Amino acid sequence: MTGVARKGIEMLELELQSSCRSDFLDITAMVQAELGGLGIVHGAVIVFNPHTTAAVTINEGADPDVVSDMTTALDKLIPWRDGYNHAEGNSAAHIKASFFGSSVTILVENSCLRLGTWQKIWFCDFDGPRSRKIWIQAVNQA
Amino acid sequence: MTGVARKGIEMLELELQSSCRSDFLDITAMVQAELGGLGIVHGAVIVFNPHTTAAVTINEGADPDVVSDMTTALDKLIPWRDGYNHAEGNSAAHIKASFFGSSVTILVENSCLRLGTWQKIWFCDFDGPRSRKIWIQAVNQA
Amino acid sequence: MTGVARKGIEMLELELQSSCRSDFLDITAMVQAELGGLGIVHGAVIVFNPHTTAAVTINEGADPDVVSDMTTALDKLIPWRDGYNHAEGNSAAHIKASFFGSSVTILVENSCLRLGTWQKIWFCDFDGPRSRKIWIQAVNQA
Repeated sequence: MTGVARKGIEMLELELQSSCRSDFLDITAMVQAELGGLGIVHGAVIVFNPHTTAAVTINEGADPDVVSDMTTALDKLIPWRDGYNHAEGNSAAHIKASFFGSSVTILVENSCLRLGTWQKIWFCDFDGPRSRKIWIQAVNQA
Repeated sequence: MTGVARKGIEMLELELQSSCRSDFLDITAMVQAELGGLGIVHGAVIVFNPHTTAAVTINEGADPDVVSDMTTALDKLIPWRDGYNHAEGNSAAHIKASFFGSSVTILVENSCLRLGTWQKIWFCDFDGPRSRKIWIQAVNQA
Repeated sequence: MTGVARKGIEMLELELQSSCRSDFLDITAMVQAELGGLGIVHGAVIVFNPHTTAAVTINEGADPDVVSDMTTALDKLIPWRDGYNHAEGNSAAHIKASFFGSSVTILVENSCLRLGTWQKIWFCDFDGPRSRKIWIQAVNQA
C-alpha cells in the first residue's frame, strides 16, 4: 500500500494477486480498511482499476456460485478464442473489461462503506494470474 | 423517502416498486425532484443501486420500444435458465446487473440534471417484481 | 469547446466527429488538455457522454486491433438487425450504450490524468458517423 499525500485529496494504491485466468477477488474489507487513511467520514470513495484486462464491479458475495456463474456466462458470450486480430491473444479480456467498467463509486457514511445487504466490491481479473493494483480516492470527504 | 442529514453531505433514499421480472423504471423526475433536498445547485449527483439483481443506466426515454428491445436482447444474451449453479435461480439477473453497473453520475447545473436531449435515468430491475430502493448523494455541490 | 463558468465548478463541452457507424475515438489528449481550464490539480474528472447511442470507456490504446476486435465482438453479440421494434432502427446502438456506460471518472494528480500504463479514454460511437459532444467536469478539485 502506497499513500500519495496532498492537499486534502488522498489517493492510495492497493496491491492484489489473482490466481487464475478469470479470478474475482472480494476487495470490500480491503477498501473499508483504508477509509480512515483516505480521511472519509461522510462522502464517497472511487475504486479505480488501472488495468485494461481487468475491471471492478459490485455484486453478491454470499454464495460463491454467483461469481462462478458470472465467469462461466462471460466465457460463453466472449470466448477466449474467437478469431481476434490482437496479437497478444487476450482480446476477450479487454472486451470483458469494457463491459464491466473501470471504476465503481460507493457512498460512505460514518466511516463505513454504505453497500446493500448482499453487495460486495469485486476486482475482476480477466487475464490472470497476475499482480494487480487498484487506486482508491475520496470524493466529498466531510 | 428518508433523509440522512450530515455535515454538508446529504444522502436520500428513494423507494421504488417494479411490476414484472424485467422492469425498467424511469426515475429521472424522481431524482430531479430531490436535487433541492440534496442542496445541489451546480455539481453532480450519484444515483446508487443497492441491489445485486438490479442496476441503473442512462438511455432513451422517448420511444418505449427502446427499453423493450433492450430487455429482449438481454434475455437472449443471458437466458434465465442456462445451467447456472446458484441455488436461488436468479444468476441471469446478477450477471445483467454487473453488465449495466451499480451507479450513474449525472452533472447538475442551475439545480437541474444536465442530461442529453434523449437521455433518461432508468432503474433496471432484472428480478422483479419487488420493492426496491435507490440512494442519491451530491458530489461537488456549490 | 464551450465553457460554462460558475462558482468553483467548471464544466466544458468538447466537440467530436465520428467517421463510421462503429467508431471509437481516443479522447485522452483532448481531456488532458482541458484539465487546466477545469481548474483541477489534484482530484478527479468526470467524462460524460450525453448521447443514447454512444458511450465512453477506458481500454487499451497501443494496438488498434484491440478496438477493432471489440467492435467486431459487439456486432456479433448485438447484431444491427435482430427483429427490434424501435422504428428508428438503431436499437443495437442503444443496447451497446448501456453495456458500456454513459460516463467514466478518472483520477487526476499534479494536473495530469492518472491512467494505467495501457489505458486510454475512448468515446464509442455506435451509430455514426455523427457530430457528437462530451461534457467534462472536475470532482474534488484541489
